[in-house]
Amino acid sequence: MKSEQFVNKILAEFWGSMLLVATVVGSGIMATNTSTDIGIQLLINTFATVFVLIILISILNPISGAHFNPAVTLVELMQKRISLGQSLLYVMMQLTGAIAGTALAHAMFAQEIFTTSSRVRSGSNLFLSEIVATAGLILVINLLVQQKRINLLPYLVSFWIGAGYLFTASTSFANPSVTIARSFTNSFSGIAPESVFMFISAQFVGAIAGFFIVKIIGGRRDNV
Amino acid sequence: MKSEQFVNKILAEFWGSMLLVATVVGSGIMATNTSTDIGIQLLINTFATVFVLIILISILNPISGAHFNPAVTLVELMQKRISLGQSLLYVMMQLTGAIAGTALAHAMFAQEIFTTSSRVRSGSNLFLSEIVATAGLILVINLLVQQKRINLLPYLVSFWIGAGYLFTASTSFANPSVTIARSFTNSFSGIAPESVFMFISAQFVGAIAGFFIVKIIGGRRDNV
Amino acid sequence: MKSEQFVNKILAEFWGSMLLVATVVGSGIMATNTSTDIGIQLLINTFATVFVLIILISILNPISGAHFNPAVTLVELMQKRISLGQSLLYVMMQLTGAIAGTALAHAMFAQEIFTTSSRVRSGSNLFLSEIVATAGLILVINLLVQQKRINLLPYLVSFWIGAGYLFTASTSFANPSVTIARSFTNSFSGIAPESVFMFISAQFVGAIAGFFIVKIIGGRRDNV
Amino acid sequence: MKSEQFVNKILAEFWGSMLLVATVVGSGIMATNTSTDIGIQLLINTFATVFVLIILISILNPISGAHFNPAVTLVELMQKRISLGQSLLYVMMQLTGAIAGTALAHAMFAQEIFTTSSRVRSGSNLFLSEIVATAGLILVINLLVQQKRINLLPYLVSFWIGAGYLFTASTSFANPSVTIARSFTNSFSGIAPESVFMFISAQFVGAIAGFFIVKIIGGRRDNV
Repeated sequence: MKSEQFVNKILAEFWGSMLLVATVVGSGIMATNTSTDIGIQLLINTFATVFVLIILISILNPISGAHFNPAVTLVELMQKRISLGQSLLYVMMQLTGAIAGTALAHAMFAQEIFTTSSRVRSGSNLFLSEIVATAGLILVINLLVQQKRINLLPYLVSFWIGAGYLFTASTSFANPSVTIARSFTNSFSGIAPESVFMFISAQFVGAIAGFFIVKIIGGRRDNV
Repeated sequence: MKSEQFVNKILAEFWGSMLLVATVVGSGIMATNTSTDIGIQLLINTFATVFVLIILISILNPISGAHFNPAVTLVELMQKRISLGQSLLYVMMQLTGAIAGTALAHAMFAQEIFTTSSRVRSGSNLFLSEIVATAGLILVINLLVQQKRINLLPYLVSFWIGAGYLFTASTSFANPSVTIARSFTNSFSGIAPESVFMFISAQFVGAIAGFFIVKIIGGRRDNV
Repeated sequence: MKSEQFVNKILAEFWGSMLLVATVVGSGIMATNTSTDIGIQLLINTFATVFVLIILISILNPISGAHFNPAVTLVELMQKRISLGQSLLYVMMQLTGAIAGTALAHAMFAQEIFTTSSRVRSGSNLFLSEIVATAGLILVINLLVQQKRINLLPYLVSFWIGAGYLFTASTSFANPSVTIARSFTNSFSGIAPESVFMFISAQFVGAIAGFFIVKIIGGRRDNV
Repeated sequence: MKSEQFVNKILAEFWGSMLLVATVVGSGIMATNTSTDIGIQLLINTFATVFVLIILISILNPISGAHFNPAVTLVELMQKRISLGQSLLYVMMQLTGAIAGTALAHAMFAQEIFTTSSRVRSGSNLFLSEIVATAGLILVINLLVQQKRINLLPYLVSFWIGAGYLFTASTSFANPSVTIARSFTNSFSGIAPESVFMFISAQFVGAIAGFFIVKIIGGRRDNV
């Protein structure tokens, strides 16, 4: 790999993570600014995220693979589709990009650049929700790769996250770096720092679970 | 067929049915948790279902055919596209998967694993609604198969179910195993046990009706 | 053309028109049953219509061309892509199918099969709205046909109608047979009989206008 | 280029800009006519715009490139993909078309053809929002062109604008001619004349920024 291409990959992970979190946090602020109905707030948050995620995966997948998510990078590493060194760099960019996204959203809405969320999200049911959300994410990605249909990735991954906002009790964070970044905003999409560790643990459990479910369910079909 | 492939099919029907019902029931709970406007609740329920159904049919259709629905399996059997033995196994997995989905949704929302719906859904107009919803489902599937456009299946089937939530008086269950699984939740998407038999009867009438309408309308066009 | 194929075409226009109107009228009733916010009602009506219209055009376009609309049939006739006799039969099926759709929606919601709308829709601004809605519809269809991209027809036509619900003052009927059928329901989507003639006049004016705009704008590009 | 083709291009920019603004302004009026919840108003405005923008880019991109936006035309000019003379004509048509769109929306809703918005939109955070919105727009367009995937343009551009309505504090005008046209309506989507200059400045800054980000991020990949 040429070094220039490598820099492109790293930057794509940064930009993608930043825009993703700016969208999640920004649309959450817009939602509470414009409606008092939490269901409507959730729909605004959902559609903004789905729209932007489709875009980011579409345009950045050809460059970096469009992980934007340490759990996804971990599963890629487990399958030896990415090196350890590159993985670490990816995670670093995902984390700094995500945090930059929170800052960008705050700046756009004239709020303090970083605040601390007071929204505690706890309970074994949310732990389960994050496992389901992350396992499903890994399942969708890996089945599509197995079936050689990566052109569907932008849509199905985004629909999974969008649906997760609406049917999982945790509203589907499913992403460790996004979870950390969302602890820096005391708005609709925030998560209290004390809840972050549990969410991330559940996400990695879910990622590993998803990886093994793919092995079981996916089999070895080649003739799609 | 290799036995391993067969196990994959069976498991795909189980997982697909489980995730479908977890989505329907879970998003119903989320909807009533977040809004008091039933219209908004319905939109939340609709988009969650459409998003997940697109995913499930896309990634599991190459494995099992993505029935998730005894009415669909019946029509496949009537057309000899599946054996009787496999049909029975499919229906068993669809039913257990669907019930597991209700349990999963309840677990994610920290509710009792199984409750009994007290929501009576009755009247000949709902009977008619389920006939329309299921007949339309069969029509969409079989016309697309006839026209050799199965790549559209995930989208058009999901849009049909989503529209059915919004324009049929019964909100379009259109699926016997999902109907049974929804009798185990006393939440937004529940159906009282006493109403289940009528819904399932209507669904099978609709499936047979859809099958014959396809024969009439579809004709024998090959040059699409 | 074999006579069997011809019967299929005629029936497809009937079934399509019926399901389209059942969706429009049914989702309108569902909307007012579930919400008091007219904006939400409009969104429910819009998404139900967009979803079903995508399906109907997708699966019936290969059979009949999926007009479901006398204004569309007229423009096809003007371009000699359909004979006069077939046009008349199409319009007859569109009208009877549309009226059957109103009846079906009412039956599903346990209402009288036919009622009379008391909702007067008048004013030169609504006349203009229907011209815009119908001209745009003709423009979308004919530019796509010119550009040999009929695979996009189901999506773009449905998006146009969906957008029209939201940005034209008349909520975009854009269809004479649907307009007549909607005069038979005294619900959300109804139109008082006294307003029907003006709407249909505007739709035909819009269809002719759209036809000429296509001639101007479309030019003779072949190298898309 | 034949002169007839040239006229087609110019007219396509006019019609496209007109219908885009008619949709934005019209759906804004519809939104406030039908709901008092600003979140719902925003969703109505968003879906109308996304639907129509997908259509306009799809059908007019083969004719004129479907800019409808002086910021887009500027970046095309910077890359020498359009001549200076043609650029100026494009911008003229975009501006007159956009203003005609405001007039059309007002006429459809029986309002005065032109009014003056009293809605001041100011603050450095809105300046930043417009930079983000416009830079992202340029990014999406140019990465897709680089990757030779212009068939995705209608969808991803529209999703970007739709998301921008929901996650940027300025609701993503991202278009100088649309901004000017929206100063002529004292309704939901209006912008006070005194705020126009700041918005347009931010949009051009964003366009230039987007252009350079594409240079950095896009690299020279050819093997997508």
